[in-house]
Amino acid sequence: MKNKAKSINKALDNSIPLCNNFVPLWEPVLEVHKAMRYTLLPGGKRVRPMLCLVACELVGGQESTAMPAACAVEMIHAASLILDDLPCMDDDSLRRGKPTNHKVFGEKTSILASNALRSLAVKQTLASTSLGVTSERVLRAVQEMARAVGTEGLVAGQAADLAGERMSFKNEDDELRYLELMHVHKTAVLVEAAAVVGAIMGGGSDEEIERLKSYARCVGLMFQVMDDVLDETKSSEELGKTAGKDLITGKLTYPKVMGVDNAREYAKRLNREAQEHLQGFDSDKVVPLLSLADYIVKRQN
Amino acid sequence: MKNKAKSINKALDNSIPLCNNFVPLWEPVLEVHKAMRYTLLPGGKRVRPMLCLVACELVGGQESTAMPAACAVEMIHAASLILDDLPCMDDDSLRRGKPTNHKVFGEKTSILASNALRSLAVKQTLASTSLGVTSERVLRAVQEMARAVGTEGLVAGQAADLAGERMSFKNEDDELRYLELMHVHKTAVLVEAAAVVGAIMGGGSDEEIERLKSYARCVGLMFQVMDDVLDETKSSEELGKTAGKDLITGKLTYPKVMGVDNAREYAKRLNREAQEHLQGFDSDKVVPLLSLADYIVKRQN
Repeated sequence: MKNKAKSINKALDNSIPLCNNFVPLWEPVLEVHKAMRYTLLPGGKRVRPMLCLVACELVGGQESTAMPAACAVEMIHAASLILDDLPCMDDDSLRRGKPTNHKVFGEKTSILASNALRSLAVKQTLASTSLGVTSERVLRAVQEMARAVGTEGLVAGQAADLAGERMSFKNEDDELRYLELMHVHKTAVLVEAAAVVGAIMGGGSDEEIERLKSYARCVGLMFQVMDDVLDETKSSEELGKTAGKDLITGKLTYPKVMGVDNAREYAKRLNREAQEHLQGFDSDKVVPLLSLADYIVKRQN
Repeated sequence: MKNKAKSINKALDNSIPLCNNFVPLWEPVLEVHKAMRYTLLPGGKRVRPMLCLVACELVGGQESTAMPAACAVEMIHAASLILDDLPCMDDDSLRRGKPTNHKVFGEKTSILASNALRSLAVKQTLASTSLGVTSERVLRAVQEMARAVGTEGLVAGQAADLAGERMSFKNEDDELRYLELMHVHKTAVLVEAAAVVGAIMGGGSDEEIERLKSYARCVGLMFQVMDDVLDETKSSEELGKTAGKDLITGKLTYPKVMGVDNAREYAKRLNREAQEHLQGFDSDKVVPLLSLADYIVKRQN
């Protein structure tokens, strides 16, 4: 897995240049590229691209075939982090132990960098045809990604997150239903897309793609449950981002609705469910996916 | 052309529903859809989608084949208008005679609506395969669009626009070079993409696509030159947006660098150049493209 992370980091680094054939980029573009690199390159757990590569290999594909798509998914993720932190959104000043993008580059450039990352994601994925992937597969992959970032995915999740603060619920069940729907859109849909796109690139069957999608949905939701738990139980130093914020802003979170212990239990249950969806695949080959899920449920930041 | 505009408006209207099989959308999504419709649907000259449809027909395609792509280009345009008007960008409160998107829906929802419009644009274009367009053509069209919105297009133009205010130039030639590069990216690249994507969908040859692209670049630049002229010579009422703003903010514009009369002359020259690029096409079929260019150079708002 460490080698995979290294390959991903290298590919990401190459994808956003600061010069073109030793000629520096046009100054306004250079500034945007710096802002894109600032959030995309350092740190990051690379859960999504890792999942994309592993899914590709699991269905019999080569890691390299899914690399552009894996980078694309990480770009989409970075683009959404930049937006999440904006003053008009979560107004956050710390991310991965560093000042947030807009604190360094200003709001305007941050918004442009976020847009540019999303369009680069599409371009990267389209470029997979040069690796011998058929146009049909590439189109299907781009479709999955477009779905994951629009009102069927990230946008809906973010909108629900913002609306949640001013909503009133009849009971705990209602709250939980809203919370789950919100996190499925905000986090799980992109994690799903990572796995699905990897499997598409690797030439997986529809059934294989479906099973990986179900696994990824559990993992994505579990990731978010643990994120909520860590936000409440860890310090800003430990997390590398502002901790305890959800409590202050009155955001709906799993620990708030069901308590920290129950939230942890829920994450463990999702982990078991995720593992069940992998039954039927080669038991050696699923090891990385099992460890990835384990890592998420046990992570400390 | 009036019929084309009607068809475009209808297709745009259908593309963003407020309910799904008579069931209202999930509330957070509904709000984003409303914001998307607010900027996408009413008013607008529909220059880009019109160009897309006409280009498709010019190379022998059916109007309906290019309709999803035409809508997509207009969505990308609307998305960029929403961003342009944001407080951290141009901070504008009037657009097409109405309050700007963020004045009505708030900054957060506006940013999400802008993102959602861009991802819907990709989805729409991909859906062209259901109209019998080959995967290869669709792929090429999406590629053109991704190029037009990223750091090779809109993002670069917007970044240059923002950076221009604080830049100092050695002489008028330097200013003009910067201005042209800025507007090519900010406006012309998307107008080019509209024509190119239309021609791709219609099955045009590489040579036809190239000629339409050159025509569209002239038209796009001319559009921006006239925009600058109108900003300086018309009232806010006449324009439906805040007039004279470029003067106040110290933005680089064509009238400022070369004077209003010279700017008008430049626009006319671009119109002649645009017409020259159409030589070789069927002289009856290019009439709509000639009128479109004429309309832009003579428009009053």
